[in-house]
Order: sequence, then structure tokens, then C-alpha cells
Amino acid sequence: MEQPHKVVIVGGGFGGLHAVRALRRAPVDITLIDRRNFHLFQPLLYQVATGGLSPANIAAPLRSVLKRQKNARVLMAEVCGFDLSDRRVLLKDASVPYDSLVVAAGSESFFFGHADWERWAPALKGVEDATAIRRRILMAFEMAERETDPQKILQWLTFVIVGGGPTGVELAGALAEVACFTLRNEFRSIDPRDSRIILLEGQDRILPSYPAELSWKAKAHLENICVTVRTGVSVTDIQPEAVTFRVGDHTETISAKTIVWSAGVRASPLGRLLSEAAGISVDRQGRVPVLPDLTVPGRPDIFVIGDLACCLHQTGAPLPGIAPVAIQQGRYVARVIQSRLQGETLPPFRYRDYGTMATIGRGRAVAMIGPLRLSGFVAWLAWLFVHLMSIVAFENRLLILLQWAWNYCTWNRAARLITGETVF
Amino acid sequence: MEQPHKVVIVGGGFGGLHAVRALRRAPVDITLIDRRNFHLFQPLLYQVATGGLSPANIAAPLRSVLKRQKNARVLMAEVCGFDLSDRRVLLKDASVPYDSLVVAAGSESFFFGHADWERWAPALKGVEDATAIRRRILMAFEMAERETDPQKILQWLTFVIVGGGPTGVELAGALAEVACFTLRNEFRSIDPRDSRIILLEGQDRILPSYPAELSWKAKAHLENICVTVRTGVSVTDIQPEAVTFRVGDHTETISAKTIVWSAGVRASPLGRLLSEAAGISVDRQGRVPVLPDLTVPGRPDIFVIGDLACCLHQTGAPLPGIAPVAIQQGRYVARVIQSRLQGETLPPFRYRDYGTMATIGRGRAVAMIGPLRLSGFVAWLAWLFVHLMSIVAFENRLLILLQWAWNYCTWNRAARLITGETVF
Repeated sequence: MEQPHKVVIVGGGFGGLHAVRALRRAPVDITLIDRRNFHLFQPLLYQVATGGLSPANIAAPLRSVLKRQKNARVLMAEVCGFDLSDRRVLLKDASVPYDSLVVAAGSESFFFGHADWERWAPALKGVEDATAIRRRILMAFEMAERETDPQKILQWLTFVIVGGGPTGVELAGALAEVACFTLRNEFRSIDPRDSRIILLEGQDRILPSYPAELSWKAKAHLENICVTVRTGVSVTDIQPEAVTFRVGDHTETISAKTIVWSAGVRASPLGRLLSEAAGISVDRQGRVPVLPDLTVPGRPDIFVIGDLACCLHQTGAPLPGIAPVAIQQGRYVARVIQSRLQGETLPPFRYRDYGTMATIGRGRAVAMIGPLRLSGFVAWLAWLFVHLMSIVAFENRLLILLQWAWNYCTWNRAARLITGETVF
Repeated sequence: MEQPHKVVIVGGGFGGLHAVRALRRAPVDITLIDRRNFHLFQPLLYQVATGGLSPANIAAPLRSVLKRQKNARVLMAEVCGFDLSDRRVLLKDASVPYDSLVVAAGSESFFFGHADWERWAPALKGVEDATAIRRRILMAFEMAERETDPQKILQWLTFVIVGGGPTGVELAGALAEVACFTLRNEFRSIDPRDSRIILLEGQDRILPSYPAELSWKAKAHLENICVTVRTGVSVTDIQPEAVTFRVGDHTETISAKTIVWSAGVRASPLGRLLSEAAGISVDRQGRVPVLPDLTVPGRPDIFVIGDLACCLHQTGAPLPGIAPVAIQQGRYVARVIQSRLQGETLPPFRYRDYGTMATIGRGRAVAMIGPLRLSGFVAWLAWLFVHLMSIVAFENRLLILLQWAWNYCTWNRAARLITGETVF
């Protein structure tokens, strides 16, 4: 009997997982390889970092999601290379053969060549990052409560967020909510409302990928809840307890105990490994250039999707590294693989932009949905609906909704645990 | 104006937190000192270790619990000593004065003088322990799935729990549920139902502090769900991947990749520090002997309660280290402190035993409530009710109930994240 077509998918993020799901009725043998045992709903990581949700609320075990999909198996392992001539994905102590390969390994945070900054300004990328940032934020208030020197109290109560994209904006908004509302009445020596939350952005407006109108609305919302927004600044140095940046023609330093990085990402190193094996080169962000059918040039059996791919939009610009792109690409490659098995070909991948959105603290958001530009509470409801509907496990959806309803009504956040190593 | 009476309470566990709450209407100034920023509902830690609940579900931030209690402040700090002549609790870089001191620092896991065993057989005591054990358990199944050598697969699928008290029994039951039901259909190479779960107990029956009848019922329940119960064994060595124990007159070794310790606890080291300062000595488990009013001999202003106290029952035996004892003692010392301020005295502390209970996997428990001896589903409902009602934050109660209802109906466990350092 003929062996079924072997599909190997590297990465259980939005792109990889949707590719696996879209192949559920195809006569193929799927192996999904991921370093982690769960799919993470990254758009809500900032809620974990600010104590609104638990990690398990925004993560779904991959095996659980795929338990009924009999043509798929999950392998928790780290990919360390590709053998394209023998058609194998290399693990540390084994290798997995493929007929079609989909690489969806995503991106990692990037400090523009200053890897040492990460120590002082952790980035919000994985679950461990989120709980570590949560620990830092909550510890800052604890330390301020114990401090008597007003200068040091101010340092503990100063929070700098570097990068005004959606993650930075959402984190700043949630942090302001924590300082002004959640922690109200919880301290006796300090008033958490004295916190300074400073959002730094290099371009001339926050949310630079959004229409200008929404950027201004987001800025106004943030300033309303006491976030200081500084645009057109470029960070030149990050020290243990200070950020230095250039703005116009002078240099400024802010003294802060808590600094969070949300300024840049770059493609997973697997992109370079794959490109080298295929004899092509990656772009400046480490992404693999792909053809209109999302395959690697000269390798029709290898697809790259999501943040790892440099895929040009119909308009000629590269597609942004956001979940909807990855999801649509995952579904597209699943259709390509099925069509080929039936001897058919598909038209090139086309991205349909249904819109993007970002929240700004409690009950406020900005959104563009097709021609619509929304802001305020309506946008927040739209944001809530879209995000809840996109979460993979039904159970999580229900629990998150309840947790949020509770948080919203009581101003509380229950997942405020300081865990891991603490320093006194 | 006269300064209010200063009460310092060390430890925000069951004893300490209930003492603070019971003083909410007293004309005193309370400082609650804890190393952690949350109260932990330890009886449900085994649910975190087996992926049924998230840490935040069983923890309540101390500041949030006490935010409306204006006479109490929370200090997150590590106590490193006591200055009894100056009436001060010593922190690393500060000290806190008291008029009345309540020490409720609890217990820690104890390896009977073999501290090196902890590396191979972690104990289930704190939140970090629970997520570390969860990681080990879940990684064992992942590694077994990747393994081809049947001997090694068996090692990965062998789980040994040392200690047959309530924690060991509950953990063994939950682990059996995970292996037999939750993970069913999730693996393609192994069958998690092939797991061997072995519970080792030194005495001649598990749950030795319960009536014999309930011990036998618990054993029968556990064997029903494929847990191997070995009693009368004494562990003599724990190596990286094996447990050696003596049973009768011979020695046996079980080869297992996952070993969990639930065999012993001893009092917090603060007990010894306090005793030395007070010129008395601790008992063999490191507990501080207390008078019938729970004060330290010769120090009427210092109370010791909960696991840290060696308090004799009306019958002459020391009270066990369980939550109901600590709670009743916390409330009692609050009443003593208030009475003294009014120039009154109270009769000695009397422990009222309302009963104890333990669950054994899905929908089964054993309980003794007064003269009643329950087992099976009824006992489980009683267990559920008592535990839910005792959880401090209302929100947690609701979310846990929903999470359990969902887990119970779907056999699922959502909090199955492998986080922290993973080894491939």
C-alpha cells in the first residue's frame, strides 16, 4: 500500500496550527513539531504581564487541540536544522522525514544589536517573559511601599515601555489601569496613582501602522489615563535603572526601575538555517523570501508562513507580522498541499485585510475594520468579540470572558502573583 | 494621643490571615509580614501540579484580601530574626516594632536529613514546586512519546510518590486520572494508560491519621484506578532515576524518571530563631512549644500558631499541622489580644475537630465529619463544598467551580503548560 503524503509543520503558533487544522480531512500524515506543548494566544500576553489573566487562560495544549485529528501527531522537540536533499527535519537526536514541509517558526524579540539591553528591559514574547514582567511590575510597588527615600520611591514607581506598537500601547494602558484602579487602597505608605508610566516611540506617532487618526485617538486615550507618550525619540542606551534616548538634538535620561521592551522583533533563527540549506538569503529582519504560492524559491515542497516569511502584499509591500496574516497563510498552504495531491494548482496567496485593533486600558480601543474607523467603547467591544472568538479552546473563551467580566466590574485582577526568583 | 496597640503577624497562611481578619474591628495597628504577596490555598496545590487549576486560582493577593481592612498593612519581606528585649521583628534592612507578636510561619518540606534527595524528588509545598512538578509529569509523557526503547518508555511512564498522607493520596489519584482519562487519544506512539503510579507509605496503611476503615476504602479506590499502593516500606535512597526502599527484610529498587516527595514536613526555621531568642528549645520537628493560651513560655506577648506551634490537644497529643487547627488558633489569638486590651482573660485554646477529608481522583473521596464516615461520591461532594467555601476570594471560588465542572464533564485539564526551563 502506498504511504500517505507526509506533511511536517514546524511551529504551533497561529500559522502552523491553522495549517494542521485545515488539513484535517486530507489524506496526509501530519507531524507538528513545537518546542512548547501549547499554542499561545500572544495578543493577550500583556494581560498576563499585568495580572489580569493566568498563563493557562491564553494557552491551549497542542495535544488537546488535536486529540481528535487522527492524521496529526504532535512532537515536542527543538528543530536544529534541515536536510533538504534527504527531505528531513533535523532534531537533536533524531530526524523527521517529509514530503511537504511548512516552516512557521515565528519571530523572537530583537534589541537592535544590543543584546545586553534584554537584562534590564525584558521583552514580552513568551509565557515566562510575561510572568517575569508581572513579577517586576508588582515587586516595584512592593519595594516602593518599603522605601522611605522619596527619590527612590519615584524610581520604583516609574515604568518605561520602549516601543509604541500595539503591544506597547496595550501594556501601557493595562499598567495605568493597575496603578490607578486595581491597586487603589492596597498600600498604606505610597499611592500607586503617583506612578509615572512612560511610553517611548521612535516614529512621530504611536501605532505607526494604523491610520493617523487612530494614532491620535489612542494617544489622547492614553494621556487621559495618565500615561506619558513620547514620540520621535530614539533609545540610545539602557542601563540597569535608566533609559537614555535622543529626542530632536538633545539627549535625555529617565531613571526607572522597571523597563519593558516592545520595540522590535526579528524572525526565528530557523529562517536563516532554512535559507542557507536552500541556497538563498534572508532579508534584513531574518525573514525568508517566498514566492506567491508561499514556497521557497527553487523548493516547491517547502512553504514558509507567518512572521518567518517575507511575503509581498498585492501592493508590493511586505505583509506585517500579525496573526491574521499567519492564519490565512496557514489555511492557504493546506489548500495548496491538498490541491497538488489532486493534480490541481491554486492561484497565488492573497491577503484579505479585515482590519486591526488595539485596546487602551479599561473599556477603550481603536479599530479599523474595512472602511470603518472605530474608537472608544464600541471599538473595545469589537476587540473583545474578535479576540474571544479567535481563542482556540472553547473553555478558555468562557473562562476569560468571566474573568474579564469580573475584573471589569470589580476593577480587580486576581492573577497578581509574584512567582519565581524574588530579590529582597 | 495614645498610640494604638501594635500587632505584628508573621506569615499570611491560614493561621496568620485568619488572625488578621479576626482583628478587623479591634483598636489595633496590624502589620502582616509575608515573603510572598499572596495567600496560598495549599490543600489544592496537587491540582496545580496535575494541570487542573492555575496557580492564580488557588492564591489570593494578600493586599487585595485586606484592602478594606484599614487597621492592617501588608509588608512583603523576609523575617530574619527577633529582638525580644526591644520588641522588634528584624528584617534584612529594617525592623518592625510590636506590642503583640503572632508567629505563623508554617512549615517546609523535610527530607529526613537527606537534603540531596530533593533534587530528584521535589516536594509539593509552594507554587513554584507545583509548576515544577507539573513540568516533570507532563515532560515524562512527552519524552516517552519520543522514545523508542521500551525499557526507557517504561521508566518515563513510572511515577513514584513517596508518602501516603492526604497530599500523596490526592496527587496519586489526580495523576491516575491524568494518565487514564485526560491524556487519552493525545499520544500516537505510547498509551498513557500504560503508566505505573506507585504510592509508597512507611506505615502499615495510607492516610495513617484517619480511621483504619477510611484508609482501606482509600486504598481500594486508588487500586481501582490503577495506582499501586505499597505500605510498610521505608525509603533508604533516592537516586536520579530510582527509589530504593526496604520492605520487610529485603530491599527493592524501582526505576522511575519522576519521583515526588510528600513524606515529611518540619517547622519553618523561624521557630528555632524565635525559641533561641526566648531561651527555650524547639521539639524534634522544630516546632515551638506553647502554653494553653498559645503564648511562648515566659513571653505572654508572643503567640505561635499553626504548623509552627507544638500545641497539645485536650487529650495530650500534639495537634496536627492542618488548616483547621491554624484557622482556629488564628481566631483564638485575635480574641486573646482583644480581651487583654479590655482587661479580660480568656479560657485556654480548645481545638474543635469538625473532621478531615481527602479526595482520591475523579469524584471520589473519604471523609470523617464528626461521627460520620463517608466515602465515594458523597464524600467528594462534601470535600468540594468544604474546600470551595474555605477559599478566601469569592472570585476564585466561582472560577474554580466552573473549571472543575468543565474538567469533570470533559475529562480535560486546561492548565497543562510545560513552563520554565525544559530539558530536551
